[in-house]
Amino acid sequence: MDFTIRAANLDDCKDIARMIVVSGHVHVRACDLEQDGFSKNPFFHGIIAEVPEQHKTKEGHTKIGYALYFYSYSSWSGRAIYMEDLYVMPEFRGKGVGKALMSKVAQLALAAGCHQLNFTVLDWNKPSMDFYLSQGCFDITATMGYHCLRCEGEALQHLAQP
Amino acid sequence: MDFTIRAANLDDCKDIARMIVVSGHVHVRACDLEQDGFSKNPFFHGIIAEVPEQHKTKEGHTKIGYALYFYSYSSWSGRAIYMEDLYVMPEFRGKGVGKALMSKVAQLALAAGCHQLNFTVLDWNKPSMDFYLSQGCFDITATMGYHCLRCEGEALQHLAQP
Repeated sequence: MDFTIRAANLDDCKDIARMIVVSGHVHVRACDLEQDGFSKNPFFHGIIAEVPEQHKTKEGHTKIGYALYFYSYSSWSGRAIYMEDLYVMPEFRGKGVGKALMSKVAQLALAAGCHQLNFTVLDWNKPSMDFYLSQGCFDITATMGYHCLRCEGEALQHLAQP
Repeated sequence: MDFTIRAANLDDCKDIARMIVVSGHVHVRACDLEQDGFSKNPFFHGIIAEVPEQHKTKEGHTKIGYALYFYSYSSWSGRAIYMEDLYVMPEFRGKGVGKALMSKVAQLALAAGCHQLNFTVLDWNKPSMDFYLSQGCFDITATMGYHCLRCEGEALQHLAQP
């Protein structure tokens, strides 16, 4: 299937928000993505998978997948990239789009001198987990005991009290 | 105990490298930290815990702890901060230094409009895990099934092949 991968820009935020909402059943506004990803000191960067007009969905969408990433750091191994999100619309899966998006993130990582590509997967999401393991990724939670911790809401407010 | 928390600067990289080497039994060079954290588009930011001269270690160190962090993003909940590393020299533990460093990271998170403070802990590191849970953090690996995945080395090179 014909598709291209390119850097996301401001005009893609509406479509990225549409796909985030579908994938996560959450409320995300294009204007937040515009502000957080495309102003000075962006919190993330994005890439878009796009199909030609003749392959657009019945709703008229040509932007059919995306990945969000940001640069990160490991005190033990230096520069790293974190892939926050990788999504392909269901009707376009199994055609190499997800692989191509992830490959692009890996290229960006190497170009920036990063030694690691890190991300998280929910353990019940077996198709995703299998895909990533098939690409040579390691589940460092299972093999090394890394646990993800999060502080948010009232706990974050409380922690910030001096 | 008297100590201060402040933003790290270029001159702190030697001490941060010293503490990373001790904590991780890894080889880290101050010059890498200088380049990766204190040039244009830094990969991380840092804060330092410092004691007055009269409390310096027998080796003469006054910089006795640090945290590294970077800004990150969640497609579901927006701006976030990631605490990559939090370390206090053993002889200064149990005196509130770690809590103060983490509190500063939480303040920086809120000041930047972040909704989450994320980090990882090794599951065998029970003292750290207990500390974080006591601060209201959630183990989202244990409760929600988040697994950390990593691609590096040859697998990353291979993934980047178009």
